[in-house]
Amino acid sequence: MPRQVLVMLNRPSAEAPPHDPDAAAHRFADPAVPQLSVLDLGATRGDGIFETLSVGFGRPQAFEHHLRRFAASAASLDLPRPDLAAWRDAVLAAIGALEPAEEAWAKIVMTRGIEGGHAPTGWVYAAHSIDYSRERGEGVAVVLLDRGYRHDVESTSPWLLAGAKTLSYAINRAVFREAERRGADDVVFVSSDGYLLEGPSSTLVYRRGGTLISPGTGLGILDGTTLANVFRYAREQGLAASFELGTPDALRAADAAWLVSSVRLAAPIRALDGVAFPVDREFTAGLNSWLRVLAE
Amino acid sequence: MPRQVLVMLNRPSAEAPPHDPDAAAHRFADPAVPQLSVLDLGATRGDGIFETLSVGFGRPQAFEHHLRRFAASAASLDLPRPDLAAWRDAVLAAIGALEPAEEAWAKIVMTRGIEGGHAPTGWVYAAHSIDYSRERGEGVAVVLLDRGYRHDVESTSPWLLAGAKTLSYAINRAVFREAERRGADDVVFVSSDGYLLEGPSSTLVYRRGGTLISPGTGLGILDGTTLANVFRYAREQGLAASFELGTPDALRAADAAWLVSSVRLAAPIRALDGVAFPVDREFTAGLNSWLRVLAE
Repeated sequence: MPRQVLVMLNRPSAEAPPHDPDAAAHRFADPAVPQLSVLDLGATRGDGIFETLSVGFGRPQAFEHHLRRFAASAASLDLPRPDLAAWRDAVLAAIGALEPAEEAWAKIVMTRGIEGGHAPTGWVYAAHSIDYSRERGEGVAVVLLDRGYRHDVESTSPWLLAGAKTLSYAINRAVFREAERRGADDVVFVSSDGYLLEGPSSTLVYRRGGTLISPGTGLGILDGTTLANVFRYAREQGLAASFELGTPDALRAADAAWLVSSVRLAAPIRALDGVAFPVDREFTAGLNSWLRVLAE
Repeated sequence: MPRQVLVMLNRPSAEAPPHDPDAAAHRFADPAVPQLSVLDLGATRGDGIFETLSVGFGRPQAFEHHLRRFAASAASLDLPRPDLAAWRDAVLAAIGALEPAEEAWAKIVMTRGIEGGHAPTGWVYAAHSIDYSRERGEGVAVVLLDRGYRHDVESTSPWLLAGAKTLSYAINRAVFREAERRGADDVVFVSSDGYLLEGPSSTLVYRRGGTLISPGTGLGILDGTTLANVFRYAREQGLAASFELGTPDALRAADAAWLVSSVRLAAPIRALDGVAFPVDREFTAGLNSWLRVLAE
């Protein structure tokens, strides 16, 4: 069985025509063979959406949460509504064809399709995960970087698409290069008016006393799919869990902090802007073990 | 001869390996056949750059300015340096194969290539222009929309890539939909601290008394390739031309204003946020005639 699988959807949205009226709902394709037109708006304008799901022991995790967020991103971009049943089937088909692994991932992508056309392009790409044990164990060095936007931009200026998971991710890639230049591994975005936001591919969580805290939604950031499970684990461990509009000083005063995401899971912050940051290895190990075997 | 031509580059940057060491510098390809991998970072992350050149009577206009800006965008994104000689040849090959037309355009795109690989992907797509006579003659209704960023973000936060022409253009597309919802055709971005910036695919120019004015560079906006020629024309007509950090009130007080871009050329603003705006038809017609026959 292959270690990477590509499934192309024939009709990513029931509101739009299929690519081929006589074809099946999806088809397997060779990931090494080109499948996209140079006129696809995903490639020319970053005009599309995506989600990356963790697949633990063959099961997609937080599957329905990812699909809900996919649909919400489509609505933000005025894309045709994704046919979630078709996407669910395509994801399960891709995972079913993948060589079994403890940890794998599946990315789902829907673009606006070819310029001037009416059919969105959709695919599922599944592959084995790389080894994240170092990040999960030792942690990541993080820098704070300006995101440029005020914390209220999602409500004042929805056309900026803050809070949608779009293919226009050049900034999310550029900040990793800036982190590297500063000798760090990852980033926490700060709003232009000084509030903690999220990582470029993760949600920020920190602990103060007996409470796990995250910035929450409505700040032009993603509704973290892993966060809900982190909060569940925290409550099972007797901690409180809540949302708070926090500043970098609140993070600096925390007992411990993590960047949590679907595939890498919880990576403890071990340094912040070059200053050592406390890592709770025991809590982190327990959390990651719990997240790895989770079905939903 | 075809009315659309696609040329794929074998080696978009001399700093990176070619796609095929035995192949020619570029090859013609069928635009209707997929050429891009679903793993291309252009498609999955909007991680790449582009330029759109006007081709008037078979000649690419402002060719060297576009290529300079292409190279500057590559540097902003830490992409390998584009081999401008290879790009120049590929553009001329594409235009040479295109059915002659008074007005055509060529788009050049370079992505970071396939994730984990080292070869950027590059192509030139050339096609005939649509008819812009209505926009050039009657003008466009424009709305002012918040760009979310302060006017100084290019210098304070270069990782936000403001001022680079990237493939992450989902916002530039979303604002056209917002304009349409407001009954308008186009947009002028305003910085979060209240300064005029640019259009999502154009440069703003306005006239006050005997002076043509544009916001200028360093504001996280593009160095307009058409603007230089608009200023040349203005000086030939006895007007002054200068840059000014302006507010929406300065625009509202102008005698006339235009959105200028490579392919549509100068579109006069006929309404601003629903309020009628004066159009100087004679000056506009003279300017557009002059821009259409320009070689450089």
